[in-house]
Amino acid sequence: MLFERRVPLFADHAQRLAQTSLRELLNDIPRGERLRQRWGPILLDLSRQKLDNQALDALGAHVEASGWQQARDAMFAGASINTSENRAVLHTALRASVAQLPSPAPREALQEIEQTLQRIDKLVQAIGQGEAASLGLPATITDVVNIGIGGSDLGPRLAVRALAPFHVPHIRSHFLTNVDGQSAHDLMRQLDPRRTLVIVVSKTFTTQETLLNGNVLRDWIARAYDGDERLVARHFLAVSASPAAAQAWGVPAAHIYPMWDFVGGRFSLWSAVGLSLALAIGMEHFRALLTGAAGVDDHFRTAPWQRNLPVLLSLVEYWNRDVQRHTSRAVVPYADLLGDLTSYLQQLEMESLGKQVTPQGDAVSGPTAPVVWGSVGTNAQHAYFQALHQGTDVVPLEFIGVVKPAHPLRANHDALLSNLLAQAAALALGKTFAEALAEAKDGGAEALAEAKEGGDATRRALAAQRTFPGDRPSTVILLDALTPESLGALIALYEHKVFMLGHLWGINAFDQWGVELGKGIARQILPALDGTAEQRAGFDSATRALIEAIQERREG
Amino acid sequence: MLFERRVPLFADHAQRLAQTSLRELLNDIPRGERLRQRWGPILLDLSRQKLDNQALDALGAHVEASGWQQARDAMFAGASINTSENRAVLHTALRASVAQLPSPAPREALQEIEQTLQRIDKLVQAIGQGEAASLGLPATITDVVNIGIGGSDLGPRLAVRALAPFHVPHIRSHFLTNVDGQSAHDLMRQLDPRRTLVIVVSKTFTTQETLLNGNVLRDWIARAYDGDERLVARHFLAVSASPAAAQAWGVPAAHIYPMWDFVGGRFSLWSAVGLSLALAIGMEHFRALLTGAAGVDDHFRTAPWQRNLPVLLSLVEYWNRDVQRHTSRAVVPYADLLGDLTSYLQQLEMESLGKQVTPQGDAVSGPTAPVVWGSVGTNAQHAYFQALHQGTDVVPLEFIGVVKPAHPLRANHDALLSNLLAQAAALALGKTFAEALAEAKDGGAEALAEAKEGGDATRRALAAQRTFPGDRPSTVILLDALTPESLGALIALYEHKVFMLGHLWGINAFDQWGVELGKGIARQILPALDGTAEQRAGFDSATRALIEAIQERREG
Repeated sequence: MLFERRVPLFADHAQRLAQTSLRELLNDIPRGERLRQRWGPILLDLSRQKLDNQALDALGAHVEASGWQQARDAMFAGASINTSENRAVLHTALRASVAQLPSPAPREALQEIEQTLQRIDKLVQAIGQGEAASLGLPATITDVVNIGIGGSDLGPRLAVRALAPFHVPHIRSHFLTNVDGQSAHDLMRQLDPRRTLVIVVSKTFTTQETLLNGNVLRDWIARAYDGDERLVARHFLAVSASPAAAQAWGVPAAHIYPMWDFVGGRFSLWSAVGLSLALAIGMEHFRALLTGAAGVDDHFRTAPWQRNLPVLLSLVEYWNRDVQRHTSRAVVPYADLLGDLTSYLQQLEMESLGKQVTPQGDAVSGPTAPVVWGSVGTNAQHAYFQALHQGTDVVPLEFIGVVKPAHPLRANHDALLSNLLAQAAALALGKTFAEALAEAKDGGAEALAEAKEGGDATRRALAAQRTFPGDRPSTVILLDALTPESLGALIALYEHKVFMLGHLWGINAFDQWGVELGKGIARQILPALDGTAEQRAGFDSATRALIEAIQERREG
Repeated sequence: MLFERRVPLFADHAQRLAQTSLRELLNDIPRGERLRQRWGPILLDLSRQKLDNQALDALGAHVEASGWQQARDAMFAGASINTSENRAVLHTALRASVAQLPSPAPREALQEIEQTLQRIDKLVQAIGQGEAASLGLPATITDVVNIGIGGSDLGPRLAVRALAPFHVPHIRSHFLTNVDGQSAHDLMRQLDPRRTLVIVVSKTFTTQETLLNGNVLRDWIARAYDGDERLVARHFLAVSASPAAAQAWGVPAAHIYPMWDFVGGRFSLWSAVGLSLALAIGMEHFRALLTGAAGVDDHFRTAPWQRNLPVLLSLVEYWNRDVQRHTSRAVVPYADLLGDLTSYLQQLEMESLGKQVTPQGDAVSGPTAPVVWGSVGTNAQHAYFQALHQGTDVVPLEFIGVVKPAHPLRANHDALLSNLLAQAAALALGKTFAEALAEAKDGGAEALAEAKEGGDATRRALAAQRTFPGDRPSTVILLDALTPESLGALIALYEHKVFMLGHLWGINAFDQWGVELGKGIARQILPALDGTAEQRAGFDSATRALIEAIQERREG
């Protein structure tokens, strides 16, 4: 096993690097050139990570010894690498049709995928040309509601928002996710039931949240048609791996699109799960998204580790997590359109890699997924960046910027980009106590001028509060522009990074048993919410007390 | 100093508790009763924190010895506890008029606050009654845009969304925050400039993002009036501590509302910074928000630590951070309307407490602010809860639930609440390997049934993957309903928790020097974005390389 040796392998490098700083490391120009790598529309700058050439070489030797290429090829070929569920992992096959390299995926899978793409194409064309009725849908559709949660929500939601400048006219997209009835309630007040198309997305078609919301919207549409079920059914599409369940729920067979066991929910944007996206941006743009992802697939399959973006990204995370023991990573896109990227990555990374046993059932010997968090800049600068600059813990950051905006406000965009660059620089370089003190003596510190009497002790205390430790690592990812193609590439980059970390950490990145226990307990609690003391008796004392508090207060 | 002794003080308790589990601790009924405390519409349940009676007593003794009451009273009385800026900290005075206890704040401050409240009241009434023109505003206002960032954005944004069921009709609220031009661009396409009221909120009136966006909207409104500046000025209000700067920018003096040095941005919702909220919900509801906060102020000033909600909340965070060394806390509201609570708390907590030196300039000896992150449940369950249940790190959680919803969809709401309770239970109780193995033997594990050949080793490996370590701490906060009053109380609860942690950690929670360095560097980078190699030469190698990459790609 690799894992026993993880930290010892890199201890010397960590020790050496503890003696230096990013200020120093940034003077090494060839190092910077190694750590900045471009693929297509993506520039990945890792030069502000606390790594030198030797440490990078050690990481490279480690990954090369790990058999990552064979593991990668097994995934692309459809081996059952999701061992706990005995399933293949073939999200890459979803974009194989637009890749340069031939796909080694099983032919039947590729055929099913292609047939589904053609069905999506037909649907998108029909709605776009005002011929929805020919497919048994309402003649006029102004609003599309995607009902789904987790992987049936986060991908389409991210992409629909990110690609707003590419939206087709006359269709508005909505995402109904949470079982909180407030969202369904508000949505129904906004929309016209006769012009709303609902896409119910659930792999099993048993997802509690999704079916409850589906029922609410079905009742709402039924009221608009005095309960005529045939007319109501025209408003529903389903995306599911359980077509029988979808049909039993009331979706006509011709309106059901497949999901497959060989695609996990959090990797499924490229399938019919992306239907709401395809409707929002049109089929040409949807295929461009696939093309961007396929480009990164080809890159991942062919580039040596030194130039392989997903591999490099995984090695840096491995370094920050296993060796430096940082516990979280902040993802901060400097782009409002990428406002849902962080929540997308939370699922992609934490659901995939938040594990503590190997597929053999042994405990992993080091940490796995860090907490992924963050929000858009510059907003974040005015919220929590104080703690990132001067807090006691080091949090590696990932900045994402877009060179060319989709709007004409150049002054705004230059301010945005200069702030992104400045934050990465400030975190890395810091400001020493001596520098802060010198500034104060220069009269640069307005606080000092205002300060109460004090003299040298006050001056030194204030300078200490204006000192920045620096040496805080970050990654910068620059996209040439935010397009379907670059977004597809960016997401695929993260997908493969996750694959690599699963490989390096020796865990199955493709199952999610950790979501089951809570679901089971919720099923037990639900009837007890209105129940008797006897029904509560089986629960722990805290659960009992909270159920009682709810019962007491909801009568009030 | 307290700090030297922090960990040793509690080491025995931590050791004892390491030998037990939450499963065990929950059997202690009196312990649970101590750890569940109610104030008004808020039930705070700390019984799933990894504390027993002895540890809680030790924490209580620690806080009692710390002089917290004197520190608290000094804040309420207006002492200059923000020492680095030599300022009082009087956000509590903003709601003193509706408190039960008399305020010890300086009389002049209370008078200015009351006058401002009356001006806000007059404005809200005038707009509500369609008499805006009498105050020099446009006769018809359908949309209000709040331009601000950080503390000038997050509070009103949180409250306007949370209190959507209390909105007055005919006014839509918008928040323009980020300097990313996309947001301004999209907003202008949506709105009618002649019916839009813009509130520019900036303490200094020099905030780069806010002024750039203000300029963009001013130009847009000017185009609607062929540049007639007098008509344009009718559309702008300002909230600022620099009225001269606001007036110079073009806001009429009568349209300028004050901010004060004695209220920090992240504590300013209760002032004129809440103007957009007051316009959205009306003055009666705005005063109810203040009343809720004032109630918690009174509670904080009078309750003994054992029943003092903010004190208890701070002690638990102290325990998790200083003793247990957890590095982040997830805030997960089970309420879509509270979708902005987490980002609000990120600023309130991380900007206040992300410090590493004392006011005297000495290094703190332990950790300060943890990372605060999270998002609404149940969505979060389908995203990152895998890692919270089965990841390698323990992340304490804070669940917030609402007993009575503002919508009629009871089945949805019961599902929501049962999930909240179930997650807290599952995290605390876990599932042992033996339990997982027994389930599998019972045939309960569908994965097993599908599993490839294997026998006992496979069965054990699968059971290991379906094991939950449990013993993961969480707090549950239940609000009777989400109202202006309960929201005000909830926010004040967090404000005072932050005050207490600043006190316990010995740091100044009311300044934010850590935001300055990046701002300064951004000012230097901005002109270099279009500059020559010479202009780039002063920057570090990574900044130079990224500026070059931007220049190359934006021509492409």
